[in-house]
Amino acid sequence: MVKVAVLGHGTVGSGVVELFQKNAKSITSRAGQEIEVKRILDIREFPDLPYADKFTKDFNEILNDPEISIVAEVMGGLSPAFDFTKSLLEHGKSVVTSNKELVAAKGAQLLAIAKEHNVNYFFEASVGGGIPIIRPMHQCLAANEITEVAGILNGTTNYILTKMIHESVPFDEALATAQQLGYAERNPAADVEGHDACRKICILASLAFGSHVYPHTVYTEGITKLTLDDVAYAENWGGVIKLIGRAKKLDNGKMYATVYPALLSSHSQLAGIDDVFNGILIRGNATGDVVFYGRGAGKFPTASAVVADMIDISKASSTSKSLSWKDSDADNVADYKEAPLQFYIRADLCGAAQPDIADAFGDVTWLSRPGQPADEVAFVTDIMTEYELDDKISTLGNKISVKSMIRVLDY
Amino acid sequence: MVKVAVLGHGTVGSGVVELFQKNAKSITSRAGQEIEVKRILDIREFPDLPYADKFTKDFNEILNDPEISIVAEVMGGLSPAFDFTKSLLEHGKSVVTSNKELVAAKGAQLLAIAKEHNVNYFFEASVGGGIPIIRPMHQCLAANEITEVAGILNGTTNYILTKMIHESVPFDEALATAQQLGYAERNPAADVEGHDACRKICILASLAFGSHVYPHTVYTEGITKLTLDDVAYAENWGGVIKLIGRAKKLDNGKMYATVYPALLSSHSQLAGIDDVFNGILIRGNATGDVVFYGRGAGKFPTASAVVADMIDISKASSTSKSLSWKDSDADNVADYKEAPLQFYIRADLCGAAQPDIADAFGDVTWLSRPGQPADEVAFVTDIMTEYELDDKISTLGNKISVKSMIRVLDY
Repeated sequence: MVKVAVLGHGTVGSGVVELFQKNAKSITSRAGQEIEVKRILDIREFPDLPYADKFTKDFNEILNDPEISIVAEVMGGLSPAFDFTKSLLEHGKSVVTSNKELVAAKGAQLLAIAKEHNVNYFFEASVGGGIPIIRPMHQCLAANEITEVAGILNGTTNYILTKMIHESVPFDEALATAQQLGYAERNPAADVEGHDACRKICILASLAFGSHVYPHTVYTEGITKLTLDDVAYAENWGGVIKLIGRAKKLDNGKMYATVYPALLSSHSQLAGIDDVFNGILIRGNATGDVVFYGRGAGKFPTASAVVADMIDISKASSTSKSLSWKDSDADNVADYKEAPLQFYIRADLCGAAQPDIADAFGDVTWLSRPGQPADEVAFVTDIMTEYELDDKISTLGNKISVKSMIRVLDY
Repeated sequence: MVKVAVLGHGTVGSGVVELFQKNAKSITSRAGQEIEVKRILDIREFPDLPYADKFTKDFNEILNDPEISIVAEVMGGLSPAFDFTKSLLEHGKSVVTSNKELVAAKGAQLLAIAKEHNVNYFFEASVGGGIPIIRPMHQCLAANEITEVAGILNGTTNYILTKMIHESVPFDEALATAQQLGYAERNPAADVEGHDACRKICILASLAFGSHVYPHTVYTEGITKLTLDDVAYAENWGGVIKLIGRAKKLDNGKMYATVYPALLSSHSQLAGIDDVFNGILIRGNATGDVVFYGRGAGKFPTASAVVADMIDISKASSTSKSLSWKDSDADNVADYKEAPLQFYIRADLCGAAQPDIADAFGDVTWLSRPGQPADEVAFVTDIMTEYELDDKISTLGNKISVKSMIRVLDY
């Protein structure tokens, strides 16, 4: 018998408790022993729940209970989640979490504390909801050198983009629908500005390449400026616009790590991932591309990842040596503007003609859309760095006015 | 230091040895210690290889070497692979394999022997090549009740179908191209008749539902009878034809387990999986659908799965309790003809008219194709069992001649 506690009885926390009841039989069979939720921490009261007697408002009741060996931290946020997690690990309890903000900010530190105290800090639920990704990445791909990780990591923005692409709904309206459906928060900044995807690519990059990637080092651009015009040009090019978090290893030991809307060919395995679904591509030197797809959020998908981590820890004899990474001094991320890419540009001509653009940019692929104004152009460049792109744009001076620039990725 | 041996130096076996050299650093780091390939069994000689001194033709040199604790069986086939594996496990050595034929035929027995001797029998490479699927399924989905598993499990047939769908190349010609490219064997029966996919769905179903599924109990139909006419009608319906291996749990404790060409909506996450790629969908009661996608075969993808299993075993302290299943008396598979499905029918009218068909089948969706002969009809029925379908067809007697019947699946 293993006894566990759950910190937070919100969407994910209540899902965790319910899953332990709903799938009790298979959980016991997989774990090889019974797992009992002994305590649930929440500042609220839930007197009508059948397990109302398990609630406590006092964290110390969990911290100081020697029977509790594993704790799920599903509160979210940095405070008090960080202090709670640190104390629990220091008291010899393993912790599992869905808290991507905390793992992205403090993962290396918490993993080191876990190791010091011979316990585990697992975080399968922090990326991709119920999609198994952290463990397959560290374990099944152990025989690979991972060279790149890229994915659609945020369901809310993917839902909005899907509405824009397939139903020609403008951004504001798609966002409002997402809010009505509960997919987006009233303050949607964390999603639509890309911060949530940024935290997730930090976690994936840290695990793939072994040193902590801090969110502030990752260039992050959201989807708020995308228009249906861009969506139409993307279609003409034969692709779609998706918000992609991406980390790519470089020969100099650094990496590119970015979050931005990207133009993907419609043949891409990530292009067909629609609605609130997530998809994550791992590129390895032996496996080639492997893609994991599923619901990236939601009560039970996320709770199932939390519970799976708890089952794994219940079977573990000591700290996992490899589900871990080192801290960094935040200089492991290279300047994203040095990445050689193709670029999509939409611009108003203010005196320039198409030959001027060809002079400045070299070979470009011209795009068109229904209702395209006479003075609007859109094109995709050849491969260059973003510094080179900026230079080329500046050579045209005020003869063009760039309305949007979207990077092209080749997944 | 862990010492290992490799049985068979064919495509996968040589890939395993090469991966240990190529990715030595990350393998050592993930395993927490060095892993050395000490012996390679092959009846052939490879005097020019830098590791020529490791070869032996005598299996007993590996079996009786107390230093060797893990062996990769990558010979394929039942004999002598079964005897070798059994002896190794009985001698206290763990075995990993890519041999789907052996796992599908003898998995329960070998897993039991492994358990008896406190060692492991792992087989990640037996399904989906380099796609992590066995371990994510048993581990990360531990908190789920798995209700269904379905997938494109054979790269050769998927390549042929892709040529038929996207390039309108007839079956025979697509097969010939696959053979030229080395994707298909000179005797392609194991692939095109569905036997390879059958072995893989047996392994997935056994693991998902806990009792051994024997290949002879799985209704298996290949792709040899598919025509470009069917492909064209499928397109008109808004879908594609894919060879799907499928296992679905029933309330009575049995399961449907089948391999056949199926009509899938083009919105299906499996519909876009083309060429030699594999994709496997796991449906869980908590996660919903999760899809794993990647190269299902090939030297390095498969070898990477073999090596990942060896790394895992090098870290394991005893037999995995949950990566296992019980033997069965082969009565765990229900009659596939009882599964309620929609059906696609293409038929020549020999006296019947469309109203006769509507009388017999009820509401159907009529399909059309370019160049459709006046006496040819194609339609998709409502949901019914295959017994009901057979009855309805027989009521029309010899007034229609059914040219093809394809089951419709809703993944």
